[in-house]
Amino acid sequence: MDFVLTGSWSQKSHKEAGKYGQARVAASAQANGFTALPAPASWQIGTGSRYVHICSNETIHGVEFHELPDLAALGSQAPLVIDFSSHVASRPVDWSRVGLAFGGAQKNLGPAGLTLVVVREDLLGRALDICPSAFNYRTVADNASMFNTPPTYAIYMAGLTFQWLKRQGGVVAMEQRNIAKAALLYDYIDNSAFYVNKVQPSCRSRMNVPFFLRDESRNEAFLAGAQARGLLQLKGHKSVGGMRASLYNAMPLEGVQALVSYLREFEKEQA
Amino acid sequence: MDFVLTGSWSQKSHKEAGKYGQARVAASAQANGFTALPAPASWQIGTGSRYVHICSNETIHGVEFHELPDLAALGSQAPLVIDFSSHVASRPVDWSRVGLAFGGAQKNLGPAGLTLVVVREDLLGRALDICPSAFNYRTVADNASMFNTPPTYAIYMAGLTFQWLKRQGGVVAMEQRNIAKAALLYDYIDNSAFYVNKVQPSCRSRMNVPFFLRDESRNEAFLAGAQARGLLQLKGHKSVGGMRASLYNAMPLEGVQALVSYLREFEKEQA
Repeated sequence: MDFVLTGSWSQKSHKEAGKYGQARVAASAQANGFTALPAPASWQIGTGSRYVHICSNETIHGVEFHELPDLAALGSQAPLVIDFSSHVASRPVDWSRVGLAFGGAQKNLGPAGLTLVVVREDLLGRALDICPSAFNYRTVADNASMFNTPPTYAIYMAGLTFQWLKRQGGVVAMEQRNIAKAALLYDYIDNSAFYVNKVQPSCRSRMNVPFFLRDESRNEAFLAGAQARGLLQLKGHKSVGGMRASLYNAMPLEGVQALVSYLREFEKEQA
Repeated sequence: MDFVLTGSWSQKSHKEAGKYGQARVAASAQANGFTALPAPASWQIGTGSRYVHICSNETIHGVEFHELPDLAALGSQAPLVIDFSSHVASRPVDWSRVGLAFGGAQKNLGPAGLTLVVVREDLLGRALDICPSAFNYRTVADNASMFNTPPTYAIYMAGLTFQWLKRQGGVVAMEQRNIAKAALLYDYIDNSAFYVNKVQPSCRSRMNVPFFLRDESRNEAFLAGAQARGLLQLKGHKSVGGMRASLYNAMPLEGVQALVSYLREFEKEQA
């Protein structure tokens, strides 16, 4: 199995997979602090690799694949496995490039406690003997996703979210909205001498925007002022520090506008 | 590992466990159609057994352990593992006899999609190397049950249910209520020549009451009449046939009274 390490979540998946077979590192962005994605042409995919795993959006490091790699074009027969938990339904997926996609519902689809997997049919039936029955996708598919007791209420809530998504114009319209939201915030940060985002522009996440105050001694004042305005959960993940704004589907443009207004105010106030 | 087979759910657990080690059958009630529990004194527990597994309430066959076995008194050091999914919170648990208890919340605690496990602390840290991290109870305990994203809404709903349980007088009061509900139904069935329950009285489930019309050609008429009165989901599991009434905590005594009234009416009507 080949893993492309682009942040905390792909690292965790790589480590976990090592329990079940030879989990190789096809490429890693650790050397640059996960601020850029390794170019697919540079990936070292093993001959006979069972799959190539990526996390297509990394919430902690704020990097996102804006185009899924075309493994066939790279000369590999391996199916692509994507962990799309944190940007599912925020944009269309090029399913022609995907063998298996998995994720949790809790970012864009519904309440925590519902997970989903989309498997290309020819990949069913390859589970290890030690795979618990409830995670054997062949068994799950044969039982219409009800081999185990399904989380009914979470599925109902996800159904309401799907209806809402359709009323918004579906994932194509959501993508345009998410591009606009993310551009508003990144543009402000890039044009400021007070804040900085260190991720390469070509792979910046539209869902999770980590940023830093150039003077980190002001972090606490920044967070206190934000909280006073109802701008919550802006503290960055402890492993990277700084700040992070999450702009999932449920965040309206007005929320990002409010954040940018605050960024501007705080910058002036502290100048 | 030793398994006591008392119905469909303990059979499933036994089969699944076989993937991970030597899953023995310490006792089985299959010969009597799972209408009685094998006496603990007859269980053949292996020397050095890692655990003895029972399903303390079998929903399909309607049998329940009214007393948990005392493995130490049987001369075994093995911890007792109970699947108490379907009668958790319906009665007190003698925790002094339990090494590990696990279950789904969906019967008596909250919405489907929440599971729980109670582990004696000295049993933590014995997971197989191939155990997924999220199911390694040592890891789960070290992370305050939040190693994975917890199903927050389901936990909130379970919290409301626990508050409701306390207002009812807790599990001691629930047990009295459940005894009364079950007795009402079993007594009517036992005193009728029209209906029959085949489970040995000493191990009849208070939660799930399977019963049969002596003349099974009347099954469809029975179910249609029940449905017309709002008495739903009375059809027995396809593997055993007949009828089944589930009397979980949320079923009030009035619900059982309504069912018994209907049983009496239908019997008269068909006589």
